[in-house]
Order: sequence, then C-alpha cells, then structure tokens
Amino acid sequence: MVYLDNAGTTALRAEALNAMMEFMSENYANPSSIYRGAGYAKAAVDAAREKVAAAISAARPNEIFFTGSGSEAVNWAIKGIALEHGGRGRHIITTAVEHHASLYAAKSLEKQGFDITFLPCDEFGMVHAEQVADAIRPDTILVSVMMANNEVGTIMPIAEIGALLAELNAQRGNEKRIYFFTDAIQAVGHIPVDVTALGVDLLAISGHKVYGPKGVGALYAKRGVKMTPLIHGGGQERGRRGGTENVAGIVGMGAAIELAMAEMDALSENHRKMRDALIAEILTKIPHSRLNGHPTRRLPGNVNITFEFIEGEGILLLLDSKGFSASSGSACTSGSLDPSHVLLAMGLPHEMAHGSLRLSFGKDTQKSELDKLLEVLPEIVSRLRAMSPLYSG
Amino acid sequence: MVYLDNAGTTALRAEALNAMMEFMSENYANPSSIYRGAGYAKAAVDAAREKVAAAISAARPNEIFFTGSGSEAVNWAIKGIALEHGGRGRHIITTAVEHHASLYAAKSLEKQGFDITFLPCDEFGMVHAEQVADAIRPDTILVSVMMANNEVGTIMPIAEIGALLAELNAQRGNEKRIYFFTDAIQAVGHIPVDVTALGVDLLAISGHKVYGPKGVGALYAKRGVKMTPLIHGGGQERGRRGGTENVAGIVGMGAAIELAMAEMDALSENHRKMRDALIAEILTKIPHSRLNGHPTRRLPGNVNITFEFIEGEGILLLLDSKGFSASSGSACTSGSLDPSHVLLAMGLPHEMAHGSLRLSFGKDTQKSELDKLLEVLPEIVSRLRAMSPLYSG
Repeated sequence: MVYLDNAGTTALRAEALNAMMEFMSENYANPSSIYRGAGYAKAAVDAAREKVAAAISAARPNEIFFTGSGSEAVNWAIKGIALEHGGRGRHIITTAVEHHASLYAAKSLEKQGFDITFLPCDEFGMVHAEQVADAIRPDTILVSVMMANNEVGTIMPIAEIGALLAELNAQRGNEKRIYFFTDAIQAVGHIPVDVTALGVDLLAISGHKVYGPKGVGALYAKRGVKMTPLIHGGGQERGRRGGTENVAGIVGMGAAIELAMAEMDALSENHRKMRDALIAEILTKIPHSRLNGHPTRRLPGNVNITFEFIEGEGILLLLDSKGFSASSGSACTSGSLDPSHVLLAMGLPHEMAHGSLRLSFGKDTQKSELDKLLEVLPEIVSRLRAMSPLYSG
Repeated sequence: MVYLDNAGTTALRAEALNAMMEFMSENYANPSSIYRGAGYAKAAVDAAREKVAAAISAARPNEIFFTGSGSEAVNWAIKGIALEHGGRGRHIITTAVEHHASLYAAKSLEKQGFDITFLPCDEFGMVHAEQVADAIRPDTILVSVMMANNEVGTIMPIAEIGALLAELNAQRGNEKRIYFFTDAIQAVGHIPVDVTALGVDLLAISGHKVYGPKGVGALYAKRGVKMTPLIHGGGQERGRRGGTENVAGIVGMGAAIELAMAEMDALSENHRKMRDALIAEILTKIPHSRLNGHPTRRLPGNVNITFEFIEGEGILLLLDSKGFSASSGSACTSGSLDPSHVLLAMGLPHEMAHGSLRLSFGKDTQKSELDKLLEVLPEIVSRLRAMSPLYSG
C-alpha cells in the first residue's frame, strides 16, 4: 500500500514506540503517587513536556498541558476561555473553515449565550487579519483561527493576527484582553511554529499527526492565561486537567515530536518539491481538475484537487483497489455524505465540493510512489466520469 | 517491590499489550477513513466495544462510548446531562465522597447556575437511598453517586437508588425524568456490575484500573439518553465524542476487561479473604488503628486504615524504603497536603484524616506479600509515633 493520508493519521514511528514500551510493561506507576517508580514516571512525563515545549518555542515547559487528543485540546481552549471569561464578554471570533472540533465547540457555545462570528474565507481558504480586525467588538474575548487547514492545507496569517491583537490588547488593557487560540494540529512538525513569534496565547497539538501515538495531545497555554478545566479531577497537570497521566502516550508523543522537529527542514523542502510537481502533473494530465487551497501558502505535504463531475468517494475506492490510501478531506467526516464545509466556504458549488481528493505526504513518502499514482489516477478519473451523468466528455 | 496501589493504577497486562501491538505498528489506520486498513481498525474498536458492553451487561455495544480517560467519562456524564437538560431543571444531587473528578465537575456547574446537593455520608462512607429520596426536587435532573469509593472502598447502594429513581421517574414522566449516573471506575472488574439491574442511565469506566492501558476510558449511556458532547469534533463515536479513536488503547482496554471479568469471581473471593485477614491482623497488632470504610460492604481488595497520631505520607515513605508501594487515599491528590475529603466527610477529625494508609490488591497480590507487610508495618508505625508530638505512648 502507498499511504497518502498522513494528514488523517501517521504511522507510530519505531523510536516513539520503543520509548513507550517500558511504560507499557515494568514501569506502570501512576506518576501522581509518591513511591519511587512514580517519580520515575513523572520525570518521563516532564521530559516529554520539555520536548513539546521546545518544538513550539514555548518559554516554559509548564506551559504545556497534556490531553487525551488534539480535539480535547481544541475543545478545552475554546470552551475553557469562554467559561472563564464569559462574565465580561460573550463574543468569539473564529472562521468558517476550522476543523469540526473547533467549529462545533464554538457552535455549542451559542446555546450557552455566546455570540460567535464565523469569518468567511477567500477563494484559497484564507482568512485575513483585516477581517479579524473588522469583527472585533468591545465584548470580544477570544479569537480562534487554525494555523493550517486540514483539508486544503492553506496556511493562515497567524503572526499578522497575533500582532494585530497584541496592539489592540495594549489599548484594551488586561480587563478587556482578547485571547488568541490557534489549532496548530496540522502545522506542528511540518512548518515552523513559534508561539512567541506568532503571538498566540493558546495552541493545540496532536500526537498522532507527527508519528506519535493516537490518544494523546497537548495544549499550550501561556503563563497567566486562565481557562476553566474541561476535565475536572485530581491534581494532575498542575490541577488543570484531571485524569491519570497517559505516561506511555505522553512519552511517545515527546519522542515523536522531537524527531519530527529535527527532520522538519529537510523533509518539508523535499515535500514542497514533490507537492508542486504532483500538482502540476495532475492539472496537466487530467482535464477539468483544479487545485483547492492556496498555491504557495500551503502545507508542504498537502495536495487537494477537485475533479469535476465525479465524487471523491468513488476516487478513493478505486485508488484503494490499486493500493493507494487517500482521503477526500477530513478523515473525521469520511463515511458522511456531506460536502466539505471548507470547499463550500471557498465558494465551490455543492457538486464540486463532493469531488475532491486529498493526498497528504509523510516522512516516508517517495517520489516513485507519486509517479505510480500518476500512472493510475487519470484512468480512474476517466472511468468515473464515463459513469457520471454530469459529464458530457 | 510489593505493589499495593492497584486502586491507583494497575500494571498493563501482557495479553492486553499483545493485543495492542499490531495497532502500534503495521495497522495504524484512522478507523474513520474508508480505505481497507481503516475498516480493520474500526472492526477492532467495535470488538472492544462489545467486550466492554458485555462486562457491564449493557443491552447494546453502541451504548458504549470510548473516551481518553475515566475522568473524561465522569466529566462528560455530569456536564453533558447538565448542559443538555439544564433548560428544564438546574438541580443535581451527588455525594460528598465522590472522586474529585465528579466532585469538581459538579462544583464547576455551580458557576453556571446549577444548584448542587452534596449528600453527607455515614461513618462508613455510605450514602443511603432515603437520603437521595429526601433531596429530590421538582427541578432535579441528575443523581450522581459513585459505585464504590476509591479511598475507603465502601460499596454504595446503587441498585436501591436506581429502583427508587425508576419508581419516581414513572410518576414524573419523561419531561421531568431524573438521570442516574454512577462512577463505577473502582467497581468494574472487582464486583458484579449490571447496568440494567442497577438501573443506571450512565456509568463511567477506566481502562488502567483493570490492567488495561492508561489514557482510555468509556462511558455507558443507555439508548435514548441525550447528553451534550464534552469533546465536539468529527463523527467519531457516532457523532458524540470527537477525536481520532485511540485504536491501540481501546483494543487494550477491551482485552483487559474481558480477562478481568473471566477472573473476577475467583479473584474477589481470594481478595476478600486476604483483606479480612489483613485488617484483623493490623487492628490486633497495632494499637490506635482503625478501619476506614464499611467492614463488609467494601471492595474485595481494599484496606484503608488510620493510624492515630501519625501522617499517611510518613508511612508511605517508610513503606517505600522497605519495598512496598501503597497510597494514602487517592493517587490523584498525593503530593497534596490536604486531608482526605472522604475521611473528613465520614467524621474523622482533621489530624486523623491525614493519617490513613490505603492498601489495594491486584490480581498478582500474594498472601506472602501481605505477611511480609505485617512484619514491617508495626515497626514503621511505632517509629513514626515515637517522633510524633501528638503521641504520648
């Protein structure tokens, strides 16, 4: 199989699994206990915390809070800020192209009396800092904009928005501070992420998108940022996230993210080249195809193409039969027949928002695999179009 | 080391780890995708769901929702019911001796305008069905009572409360239905748990308390019970809990719980005998010691003793130096200097609520280990008492 769904999930890398194994066998202590083995487990969790902090240039390791998934981190940031600061303002700004975790977390707050502005995007899936500026109100408490789109790979102008908010917050003062959260789940390990340079207060990361295990994520929260816990409980994560620490998962995430950072520059350079070549070839070889997302400001390993007149699902099934694993957007909504909310927001008509193919590269993706894909893809598209009532040749 | 903190966490059993390994190596697919490997991962998740459902006699596997921890399941049940049904009532009944996950989840709702009744317990840590009956109001929407106490092991009369609520709900009708949640994290795998016999609507389970991995739990929610998601996101867990499924963790939990159920009767019989013998020996050998929790209605593997005039932490450190891992109540608050809220609720004075030792047995606990413990414990207590300003011999 050629695996081209690395934005959906990645293979747990051997080094991460190796690091995890001792905490899945002899060292099973609960890190919150006080006997000897517990201290060892706690030290391992804290070492992983340092690695995650380093990956995003956080000033302090204790600004990293481990969670049970990227989605938990996203929900915690949005709901946690809303509940903590909702007393002084009920307005939240986000975008129409966020991952469903953000989108639905924000929508759920509407039922609790919050007012959510969903900023539209341009034809490339981009939301601009000026749009954020225009949407800000005296009662705005949170701006939530993803760093890179999981479907179309567009990289948002997070640093610009961060700078704008820093300037505004200097005028508004601490009592009217607007918090800035970014879902960086698709970005970390693929493009540079520096929380200080970006000017974010909160940032979400997932383990399994960077060759770490599933079932672990992290939320960065800058020192002094208060948010209500999403999961109340014991004193874990400095009293902010209850639940026995998933020691093995956390250690695996730490190991994986450290390696991903070491490899990032070379890998992303290579991905960019393969990406641009693949896009050019597809658009040349297959008529009525179009690139979704920004042509240059996009994730190095993301290719998202709409093939007019056909459905994404048909492409995926035929690709699968030829040995290629891919996705038609977000893995989280596969199996659903809804069109992509991201493509719709970018202005694609309904029938075209059904017909996209996302190819996302990983660290082991080879040029030769993409060449093989190019051998079968045109035929698959032709075959599906021949069956399509919408296509007249 | 002799490990006597199985209520804090358990060793991941080899069979569970073996079941997990393939999903931590070659089979890394995202179960929500549509290519071939994904279907295989999804089938493994669903097989685990059947095992968890069987362990608590749930009528349908799809009444089981996997979470990232037991604490997440507890928070989801309490907050999810409150947010979903808060429009018709703002009163919740729980107890003063719940685990901090429940206790603080309920307390957090006070800030959102809910009114929480924390029922007191008797001297054994027990809360009675009549207390629940007396506390019910027209605007009550939820009763949350733990099945077995994590510190003192007392088993609550859940079936009696369930029967009472069933009778009341028959009168009140669906519009005024009171939901019944039990945190069964300490009970599952140790005493029989049958959701129908107990009459509960929601029930929380943790993986790592039954020799499964850390970082996975489950919430049982009876068909038709609606609760707002705690973690919004993609369509996972039938649209009710977002986040890529922790396939390996879920498979490990399924394998572990299946084995725990198969072994439960014999093991609990053995634990009960060892427990009662150990309690009798300690109370005989060590003056000014008292058993905490109910003498008979208690978890088979739980021993909780207060030694007057000394602090629990000192006992733990000296036990550790002799090769015994134990706990002074909940692992989640170790490291904190607060007295146990459970012991305080049971009426122990502050100084005695500091001085408890929890010994919790596991599947590998041997009588010979407890005999060794009995050789060192009296001396440890004497030594600490000799240093205590409170003790006059």
